[in-house]
Amino acid sequence: MFLKNAWYVIAWGEEIGRQLLARTVCNESIILYRTAGGKVAALENSCCHRQLPLAMGKLVGDDVQCGYHGLTFDPNGKCVRVPGQNAIPPEAGVRRYPVAEKYRFVWVWLGAPERADESLIPHIDRLANPSWVGSTGHKFHIDCNYELLNDNLMDLGHETFVHATSIGSEEVVAANIKTSRDDRAVYVERWMPDHDPAPFWKAALKHAAQYDGNVDRWQQIEFIPPCNYLLHVGVAPVGTGAPQGDKSRGIEACVISINTPETDLTCWQFWAFMRNFQTDQRDVDQKLGKAVHDLLSEDVAVLNEQQKNLLARKNIRKVDIGHDAGGIQARRLIQRKLEQESAQA
Amino acid sequence: MFLKNAWYVIAWGEEIGRQLLARTVCNESIILYRTAGGKVAALENSCCHRQLPLAMGKLVGDDVQCGYHGLTFDPNGKCVRVPGQNAIPPEAGVRRYPVAEKYRFVWVWLGAPERADESLIPHIDRLANPSWVGSTGHKFHIDCNYELLNDNLMDLGHETFVHATSIGSEEVVAANIKTSRDDRAVYVERWMPDHDPAPFWKAALKHAAQYDGNVDRWQQIEFIPPCNYLLHVGVAPVGTGAPQGDKSRGIEACVISINTPETDLTCWQFWAFMRNFQTDQRDVDQKLGKAVHDLLSEDVAVLNEQQKNLLARKNIRKVDIGHDAGGIQARRLIQRKLEQESAQA
Amino acid sequence: MFLKNAWYVIAWGEEIGRQLLARTVCNESIILYRTAGGKVAALENSCCHRQLPLAMGKLVGDDVQCGYHGLTFDPNGKCVRVPGQNAIPPEAGVRRYPVAEKYRFVWVWLGAPERADESLIPHIDRLANPSWVGSTGHKFHIDCNYELLNDNLMDLGHETFVHATSIGSEEVVAANIKTSRDDRAVYVERWMPDHDPAPFWKAALKHAAQYDGNVDRWQQIEFIPPCNYLLHVGVAPVGTGAPQGDKSRGIEACVISINTPETDLTCWQFWAFMRNFQTDQRDVDQKLGKAVHDLLSEDVAVLNEQQKNLLARKNIRKVDIGHDAGGIQARRLIQRKLEQESAQA
Repeated sequence: MFLKNAWYVIAWGEEIGRQLLARTVCNESIILYRTAGGKVAALENSCCHRQLPLAMGKLVGDDVQCGYHGLTFDPNGKCVRVPGQNAIPPEAGVRRYPVAEKYRFVWVWLGAPERADESLIPHIDRLANPSWVGSTGHKFHIDCNYELLNDNLMDLGHETFVHATSIGSEEVVAANIKTSRDDRAVYVERWMPDHDPAPFWKAALKHAAQYDGNVDRWQQIEFIPPCNYLLHVGVAPVGTGAPQGDKSRGIEACVISINTPETDLTCWQFWAFMRNFQTDQRDVDQKLGKAVHDLLSEDVAVLNEQQKNLLARKNIRKVDIGHDAGGIQARRLIQRKLEQESAQA
Repeated sequence: MFLKNAWYVIAWGEEIGRQLLARTVCNESIILYRTAGGKVAALENSCCHRQLPLAMGKLVGDDVQCGYHGLTFDPNGKCVRVPGQNAIPPEAGVRRYPVAEKYRFVWVWLGAPERADESLIPHIDRLANPSWVGSTGHKFHIDCNYELLNDNLMDLGHETFVHATSIGSEEVVAANIKTSRDDRAVYVERWMPDHDPAPFWKAALKHAAQYDGNVDRWQQIEFIPPCNYLLHVGVAPVGTGAPQGDKSRGIEACVISINTPETDLTCWQFWAFMRNFQTDQRDVDQKLGKAVHDLLSEDVAVLNEQQKNLLARKNIRKVDIGHDAGGIQARRLIQRKLEQESAQA
Repeated sequence: MFLKNAWYVIAWGEEIGRQLLARTVCNESIILYRTAGGKVAALENSCCHRQLPLAMGKLVGDDVQCGYHGLTFDPNGKCVRVPGQNAIPPEAGVRRYPVAEKYRFVWVWLGAPERADESLIPHIDRLANPSWVGSTGHKFHIDCNYELLNDNLMDLGHETFVHATSIGSEEVVAANIKTSRDDRAVYVERWMPDHDPAPFWKAALKHAAQYDGNVDRWQQIEFIPPCNYLLHVGVAPVGTGAPQGDKSRGIEACVISINTPETDLTCWQFWAFMRNFQTDQRDVDQKLGKAVHDLLSEDVAVLNEQQKNLLARKNIRKVDIGHDAGGIQARRLIQRKLEQESAQA
């Protein structure tokens, strides 16, 4: 069960051009391409005639020609040619998906097209604000239900154990979290005052600010259902006022992670790592992008095994702990929205 | 659901010798071998004792000895030895299948043995007539239900799109088809008058008849359920009377395709390409055999993806077009024969 | 359906050390390790929190720390740490399995812990008796239900066909068997008098006793449910009294095979080959171990194919023969014990 009336990131804009790209979101296989004018089109990846995936066909102008018997569909999914006959059966056509391009992402709307309102796309300041730079265009394919990835990101206590050599330290798991929720989002906040920072942050602060001492560190999560995740993080030299609201002496970053369901048991993680320090040094983009790639790979390995284990077992005993508060709130908010959707239908 | 009272090609005769060959037809795994006298035997590929595939055993004279405990079966499936005891349990034995060797094919009968009448094997003149030569012994394994392969071959409009670099041209899909059916077969005919021929035919006509101009082209299909397909094709220099019935100035060929079901979701295509031109040049066998192999490979790729897509989707919208007439008739004739079989049982 | 109140070999003792080893027995995935004191611990391989396999975690002292959020379990499965909080939820913990180390094997008990009585572990003299030496530590993973492996070993008539180049000869399958059963075990005995021995025994006798003539050969099976199998075998120069009870002039060996179920469709074969001859020549361990490995590999190939065939077929005809008596008794004894267990529950 996935939310239908929601925007899902299906690709980075740069992945889509004048070829046909097939990608599955919430069990629906979709082809993507750009028209000559540069607009993204998104169509059902299956010919209405004999069900060849349209991805095996080709673009003819702005239309998609099926690779089997040549039925041709315009960017709205309308059948515009049936080779060998003049009449086009009225029921011929493929589904088109409303699509929007924003923050370098391509978003598709799986619900009723008339409800596709671009203002519902979550605001991602860090990908729009020119004073932030970073590394974008990343994605992982993970063999787990997308809610396991949501859970993973909502409880950052795992950093201490999964990412012990980069961003994890005992302070992360030891810190108290503050969780809240409104109709739109779930928020989790954690402060780790006055400690010797984990290797990733120690190196970043040294390079960015020539500082090598203890820090105050923070993590501020904003989760917007069904799968949009913004993690505002940073460190500041201890005693420079960050916990009191002045982060100006520290360095800040933002992990954007869009956890798009692919199938019931697989998902995509489209992610970026943005920062507000060393903004004129673009080699830092690549270095930190690589570091974040490596540490997120550690999560991928965990999630693949977790999902396998969940599938293999019956009668699972599932014990919650304090740090699960954010993940539990995220699941509840998704559940409530699913119920609303079901009630409307 | 497969027709049982029918002959199915299980192998080319040349594939079978004094070793055990296992092959599956309509979900039944069968071993094939030749007796010392050269006759083909076809037995259930499973020992009645502990179900080891008999293909793991060996031939002892004309009998098959199981590779596990040595039970031995004669070419009729009768158990003739149970090692360690003199008495042979009356229920011991494996199923034998009626088998016939005709047109270089080995045919098996899956229905009631007493109904296995060799005169029911479809007549294939082009494999019997000495004035026709060509390339035989070919096969493809395809990951689709055999009826998708039937459909593929019944609507040759696909040539324009799947085989655009060899036999496809706009004239193929643009031509009207004439479809008819009797109790025995479905027929589809298509004429493509006066056009610059597709590359395959252009080259063939140039080599065979030193002719390089426009042609009349024809396709005449004969489909005999459940999966026997003969395609009579050819081209003649325009204005030499082919459409009026005189093909003598043209070149003719025949694609024989036997689309044997293997399982519900896989099939074999046993095929040959025969011709009545350049009959004394056997290097042409290989050249044209290779060309037809390459273009049929294009269909294999389409069929594999079509079947995957059909399995992945629920609520499929399936729109028929005019060129589907032959395929629809073929499916109806198979369906009628299945109903007859079911009524008889 | 597996017997729960039984000891199953899960590993050779030498496989287990200060790392976490995951292994599945009767569909239950278990991690194994040694405490600093050398005792083997066996725990459910799944964290009670978010179901990451504990095998992805690490040992911290004698405890297992989950690789995801750091929950930590002692060798009894008790949760001793939940990072980020002081309170440990009372329901936190993982299942621990009673474990025993005997005859170099590690045995686990899957039933009620209070019923885990080490005296129920079958006595294996040949692994305890210092006058016997040999090759231990072997295992095969086989893609079949463990009862097919039991069947295989209970009817040694298969040697003639599966192991024709090593221990098989016509005398094996031709010999009469004597089968008996009590509440604890099934016994099968076979004598093969006065014959030219199969290659394995011919070579062994030549090296061990410089004898190259005809032999009396025996096989004495003891099978203890659910999967413990001891095969006492040997040959003696003909006329030296072995059939009358004096094996002193012959050479004797013992195949120990513990056929542990892994899943419904896979099993482990933990095996050893012990002997009472050339006991001071340890290079013979390796030579004979290799020979037995090679011939048991032939059974693995048979069992994999047998299981595949059983899964592929419906309406299987299964004919029993005389040599099946031992295997049938073994299945009956397992069935009776399953019924007893079910009646007790």
